[in-house]
Amino acid sequence: MTSTLAQFITNAISQVTGAGPVVLHEPRFAGNEWAYLKECLDSTFVSSVGKFVDRFENDLAAYTGAKHAVAVVNGTAALHAAFQLAGVRPGDEVLMPALTFVATTNAVAYGGATPHFVDCEERTLGVDPRALREYLRQISEICNGQCVNRSTGRVIRVLVPMHTFGHPADIDALLAVATDFHLTLVEDAAESLGSTVGGRHTGTFGLMGTLSFNGNKTITTGGGGAILTNDSSLARHAKHITTTAKVPHRWEYTHDEVGFNYRMPNLNAALGCAQLEQLSGMLSAKRNLFLKYQAAFADLKSVRLVAEPIGCHSNYWLQAILLDESAASQRDAVLAATNDAGLMTRPAWTLMHKLAPFSNCPAMELPVAESIERRLVNIPSSAVLGMESRA
Amino acid sequence: MTSTLAQFITNAISQVTGAGPVVLHEPRFAGNEWAYLKECLDSTFVSSVGKFVDRFENDLAAYTGAKHAVAVVNGTAALHAAFQLAGVRPGDEVLMPALTFVATTNAVAYGGATPHFVDCEERTLGVDPRALREYLRQISEICNGQCVNRSTGRVIRVLVPMHTFGHPADIDALLAVATDFHLTLVEDAAESLGSTVGGRHTGTFGLMGTLSFNGNKTITTGGGGAILTNDSSLARHAKHITTTAKVPHRWEYTHDEVGFNYRMPNLNAALGCAQLEQLSGMLSAKRNLFLKYQAAFADLKSVRLVAEPIGCHSNYWLQAILLDESAASQRDAVLAATNDAGLMTRPAWTLMHKLAPFSNCPAMELPVAESIERRLVNIPSSAVLGMESRA
Repeated sequence: MTSTLAQFITNAISQVTGAGPVVLHEPRFAGNEWAYLKECLDSTFVSSVGKFVDRFENDLAAYTGAKHAVAVVNGTAALHAAFQLAGVRPGDEVLMPALTFVATTNAVAYGGATPHFVDCEERTLGVDPRALREYLRQISEICNGQCVNRSTGRVIRVLVPMHTFGHPADIDALLAVATDFHLTLVEDAAESLGSTVGGRHTGTFGLMGTLSFNGNKTITTGGGGAILTNDSSLARHAKHITTTAKVPHRWEYTHDEVGFNYRMPNLNAALGCAQLEQLSGMLSAKRNLFLKYQAAFADLKSVRLVAEPIGCHSNYWLQAILLDESAASQRDAVLAATNDAGLMTRPAWTLMHKLAPFSNCPAMELPVAESIERRLVNIPSSAVLGMESRA
Repeated sequence: MTSTLAQFITNAISQVTGAGPVVLHEPRFAGNEWAYLKECLDSTFVSSVGKFVDRFENDLAAYTGAKHAVAVVNGTAALHAAFQLAGVRPGDEVLMPALTFVATTNAVAYGGATPHFVDCEERTLGVDPRALREYLRQISEICNGQCVNRSTGRVIRVLVPMHTFGHPADIDALLAVATDFHLTLVEDAAESLGSTVGGRHTGTFGLMGTLSFNGNKTITTGGGGAILTNDSSLARHAKHITTTAKVPHRWEYTHDEVGFNYRMPNLNAALGCAQLEQLSGMLSAKRNLFLKYQAAFADLKSVRLVAEPIGCHSNYWLQAILLDESAASQRDAVLAATNDAGLMTRPAWTLMHKLAPFSNCPAMELPVAESIERRLVNIPSSAVLGMESRA
């Protein structure tokens, strides 16, 4: 039998979205997508070279305020390349939230390093800087300028905050932890294109930041990602290792290190250029959708709609509700009732330390991540649902 | 001063291609490309799901005769995933030609295995099965059913022939070597879509074969690749690990092994479906281009146009000429003269064992590969150059 809470939540969502079927997140192509794809096809430059890749990189840099953006084939590739560039080597450890999509974790594993999971705070859904600082005080020491895990003897090389569902993590406090413990900060900003902290774009605080343009993201290139950095030499190196590390020469094919085939095709960049032109409208619509949900959920006890952290501007990529701990047992009933009604919802990702391939990785106590996992439900979040013309 | 030979070769090429600028290889979009891209955009399914990925996989399987085709993001990704699926583990060795594009080699290195370079034969430009058999007799022994390199103590797990410029390697003889020495055969068929041996498509002889649809290939998806296999359980596993190893569930996000984000976006598959419809015409044109070059080079002493091996049908992806050993010293003069005339040419790839990241990898004596590297020049090869309507 459907719980009353599940029914109330289903009603609140449909009040905003209309009756199902409503997907969790769909892209919107309402600008120059056709024109740019056609132009790309007519030029015959659909692949590794072409003006849309250069333009997309320049447009991304201009929008985010990063000095450089390097377009790649997807967000996972961006993370993998960024970790290599940050000096992560086999045997190193990389600190990351247990509450994240598996891409963050996989990208560490590809290079033979070990993910090390840390807790998050409910306020931001991102890594908790205070808990992390206390934990590092207990388990690490600085040897020869490197942070070493006392129990494993391994170097902890990098800290990767992730801006969950687009809401910025407490990046200033995390940067301070990284500085104090000699960690390189790489931001997983896959979900937070358009999200800022104190007016500065997420992904531009660390040595590097990574973006994703998967089909479920705020804007899409089909599949795609990017590396942001303010370091010009790192940006050149990022371009080099993501394009097979080929040494420029009039005709010779020589490669000076193990490189990746991670470049974004020009065809996908053409789509990205058109999408980026519409980002500001998408962000307004997504914020408006949040306000609609806020009204719809206002009277619902034991449910809280996730809002942007104070001092931050979120892109509201994925809307989410948090059930009170007393209602956590009804999460699956909520998921069933909403999906049965054609309103697509989903829980948080299974926490990384619970996945079989990562169950033996080091982890701190994770009470907040585990509580969020029990209580969080993502609800339909497409920009079009927040557009006024739709009502 | 330009050598007489360089001038003769430049003239022979331009006799076929017309005056420059002529690129080495360009794609041709003369069918349903635009219609399918538009359909893809209109459906909003541009990313990880969509009917064009399924259709492209089915069309590829039907065309090649492989039981299954799994579309992925590029040829390098196809190789990397295939090596994982073939059981290549850190510390293993993988036999491959020294004469190949760096993707074959990188894809082995990603997983922590060691490339082991072998020589090729001039007749096919592919791995020489006789030289390889003799070499393995000398350096390996079978222990517990595995081929072990006696000097390194490492297991030699896989043999990867590559069908160079589309010309099939001596695949039957190589299969026999693989069987006799307990090696798994994975074919790098990145360059040989449309090439067959005894009527059977390259890439379908080994446990798996890999294709590439990069912008410079016979057909393109912008960036793309595929894994071919006749093993249904392997095909399912290939799809699983190339799509983040997510366990199917109505809403849960669980992953049961370290997976890759290697799926081909639907947008790129849409292009591929249209390109595949035109493959047969492209292949005829490329064969016709070979005949035109044959006529143009007929009277040129000390130059041989590379032709398909006897018993094989080549796609003639990249046309190539081989200078006689006595004329090898003029290779760079030929490259300079042709490129100066706007006729794009290039030498063979720098052999893998000469690249800095792989210079310490094991290798057999490579006299034939080294001779080919000194003497080979690829010449303009676009399908359009062989089309009758163009003349």
